[in-house]
Amino acid sequence: MRVLAKDIPAAARNNSTEEVQVSGWIHRIRDMGGIRFVVLRDRSGMVQLVLSESTAIKEDGLSGSGTETGLTLESVVHARGIPALNEKAPGGAELQIRSLEIINRAQADLPFQVNGDTTRQGLETILDNRILSIRNPKIRAIFNVQATIIEAFSACLRSLDFTEIKTSKLVWGGTEGGTELFEVEYFDRKVCLAQSPQFYKETMVSSGMERVFEVAPAYRAEKHDTPRHLNEYVSLDIEMAFIESEKDLIDLERQLLAYIFEEVSRKNSSDLALWNAAVPDTEAVSRAPVIGYEDAVKTANDWSKGTRIFDINPEAERFLCEWAMKEFNTDLVFINEFPRRYRPFYTYPSDANRTMSFDTLFRGLEITTGGRRQHRYEAFVETLPRFGLKLEDLQNYAALLRYGCPPHGGFAIGCERLTSRILGIANVKEASLFPRDRKRVTP
Amino acid sequence: MRVLAKDIPAAARNNSTEEVQVSGWIHRIRDMGGIRFVVLRDRSGMVQLVLSESTAIKEDGLSGSGTETGLTLESVVHARGIPALNEKAPGGAELQIRSLEIINRAQADLPFQVNGDTTRQGLETILDNRILSIRNPKIRAIFNVQATIIEAFSACLRSLDFTEIKTSKLVWGGTEGGTELFEVEYFDRKVCLAQSPQFYKETMVSSGMERVFEVAPAYRAEKHDTPRHLNEYVSLDIEMAFIESEKDLIDLERQLLAYIFEEVSRKNSSDLALWNAAVPDTEAVSRAPVIGYEDAVKTANDWSKGTRIFDINPEAERFLCEWAMKEFNTDLVFINEFPRRYRPFYTYPSDANRTMSFDTLFRGLEITTGGRRQHRYEAFVETLPRFGLKLEDLQNYAALLRYGCPPHGGFAIGCERLTSRILGIANVKEASLFPRDRKRVTP
Repeated sequence: MRVLAKDIPAAARNNSTEEVQVSGWIHRIRDMGGIRFVVLRDRSGMVQLVLSESTAIKEDGLSGSGTETGLTLESVVHARGIPALNEKAPGGAELQIRSLEIINRAQADLPFQVNGDTTRQGLETILDNRILSIRNPKIRAIFNVQATIIEAFSACLRSLDFTEIKTSKLVWGGTEGGTELFEVEYFDRKVCLAQSPQFYKETMVSSGMERVFEVAPAYRAEKHDTPRHLNEYVSLDIEMAFIESEKDLIDLERQLLAYIFEEVSRKNSSDLALWNAAVPDTEAVSRAPVIGYEDAVKTANDWSKGTRIFDINPEAERFLCEWAMKEFNTDLVFINEFPRRYRPFYTYPSDANRTMSFDTLFRGLEITTGGRRQHRYEAFVETLPRFGLKLEDLQNYAALLRYGCPPHGGFAIGCERLTSRILGIANVKEASLFPRDRKRVTP
Repeated sequence: MRVLAKDIPAAARNNSTEEVQVSGWIHRIRDMGGIRFVVLRDRSGMVQLVLSESTAIKEDGLSGSGTETGLTLESVVHARGIPALNEKAPGGAELQIRSLEIINRAQADLPFQVNGDTTRQGLETILDNRILSIRNPKIRAIFNVQATIIEAFSACLRSLDFTEIKTSKLVWGGTEGGTELFEVEYFDRKVCLAQSPQFYKETMVSSGMERVFEVAPAYRAEKHDTPRHLNEYVSLDIEMAFIESEKDLIDLERQLLAYIFEEVSRKNSSDLALWNAAVPDTEAVSRAPVIGYEDAVKTANDWSKGTRIFDINPEAERFLCEWAMKEFNTDLVFINEFPRRYRPFYTYPSDANRTMSFDTLFRGLEITTGGRRQHRYEAFVETLPRFGLKLEDLQNYAALLRYGCPPHGGFAIGCERLTSRILGIANVKEASLFPRDRKRVTP
């Protein structure tokens, strides 16, 4: 019966003399002559195996020559032995191995050192060798945290009566942002990969579902290569009916982020430790200031000590987060009241020049954009010329507003951005399992 | 303070004389002269509003003329009144309305009758008018059930130590099934939309994560239009390490389906009632037979009474489900031991001609395909010529097997297929919010 690596210390403390089996990958081998210390990695963590000269090693007959019984790093093995306390072993226990079976031998020419210090590897090397680099515990930790983010996001919203939806990523193009769309050859015509589920989540809000969320890929054909952009990313999308303003959405995001941070703190403490990272506590989230766009530009200029800031660019985002940490002791800033010219046509105006919209900055990076949407048909039609749009290109959108649309709004959190800021990862690509950029489409 | 429609009966039973507010859509209007009975729909359900001549009706000034106060179907309103028992009202209670505010008037020319009997509408009409048809409670019920399926799928797997992953849908083409791939213009080259996360989930299993799942869109450029195919669908994908054979996967799927059915039964009883549908209980799932491919063909022929069955085609799937219902009183059948020629190159052979693979049939339709995968590099290389494949086209896949891959396997459940079979929906397109087929790319 197989046990997991994480269970060996407890078994050793119980002084069990029963043989147990562990299964996993050979993470590290230290040959002391006669005795070999082997670290085995499985889904639960690692455990030290002690192999002596009396350990029986066999290799699954199908796997190769059948005579070669040397161990190689990353080989998959079953190992049977007796748990024993050893305060020098990681976790304070080890397994004294009686027999070891090589299930699938790894070739010795590993193109990436799985058990090495990945901070010495460049990002391109890590991504080029993804099938091996993902085995490194510190790198795998990124995606353990990401899984918790997605789980906590969904769980929190379900508890607030939100319904999960799955909408099409193949959309009829030709509306906003045409230059940033990827085209798909769809039978005898062309469609585009969706930049966001905006229209679909508004459709579902208007259906009477009222509160919806979606976790799905989103696509932006942006040509520039920056540490903050991905051409394909996981968008955590929310939309809800019967809000008054973007302030309701900011309140919801506070609750949501506080819950996500709590869950990551609770479930991923060892992953956080590998990155020397910590999440903000609920108090820090509640202390996050809400600052209007114009004030934010002013504040960023005050903080920049000389650098002129004209709008909320990446530099301004960093300055504002430094300011919030100094003034409010928090990692988060909400900026609202963005000018109409910076927001999409469907954004709800609060006056002639400003909108009920917001961005969320977290540790120097925008992780969220959102706002209340226009729900009135007449106001929507009036707005279109200002954005160079034509009603005939937006018939579905118009129909949504024509047939009973409630006041509503929503936002989207970039999953990789949130992940990277939690762990202090410099480039958002590292927080994507198989990132896509202008040059990278494999593995 | 807003309350939900579902809370009105309880408030009425408490003899509360406090005014409450409900918000939602006008689902139905019955004008009795002097008194109007209006059914309001919100995310929780419906409630009857009673409007008398003394009810104050106002319309939000922005919404239009400001003088017209007639109600239209699908308009969004706030209504305030006193809960009252009335055994003739749906749910046994109603709200006697003192004041009603029209928040956003729906135009009267609804192109689809939201409150009508959708069984009288053709599928094309329902899909063409998706932004309104989704408001019909019976149609919305489909997606309430689908949300539970996704939630339960994820929760069950997390409880079994599976980690959720999100992988790229933009893949380098050129391996199997080239004719069924959609091409994407990706900057200065072409990539394809992923047919499945097969390679990525195997990569993550091999990373040491061991057990992974993904909920994501999958794409098949199949030209034929059938009631069982979608060109874009939600794939519920699973992969796990250290299995012996497909029987471990069948056991897992039994557990998973039983859990999903329990959750749908618990959370979606009113949705099931609208479709006059029921889910199999856990006993029925455990009674589902496992039958080898050759026996399955034989059995289908025995059952068909004359129609010659040569392989497990859609007709055979229906016959086998009829057989399982008759012989085992169950809605499910597992077929294993598929011939090698019917399975992809990465399928693990059990002997010269057969594979450790399986399909799951549910109420006449295949909902799952899965199997153990080849994890040995040498055997993989030997297999390629049989499938007309070249090693140089599969370098990433080969690397995965070369550097320590455990015995593993997995499967995928088609989310829309499972949804449609639970509710008894004839065409799987109806179980997709915004389905894509050869002709349909909007809304």
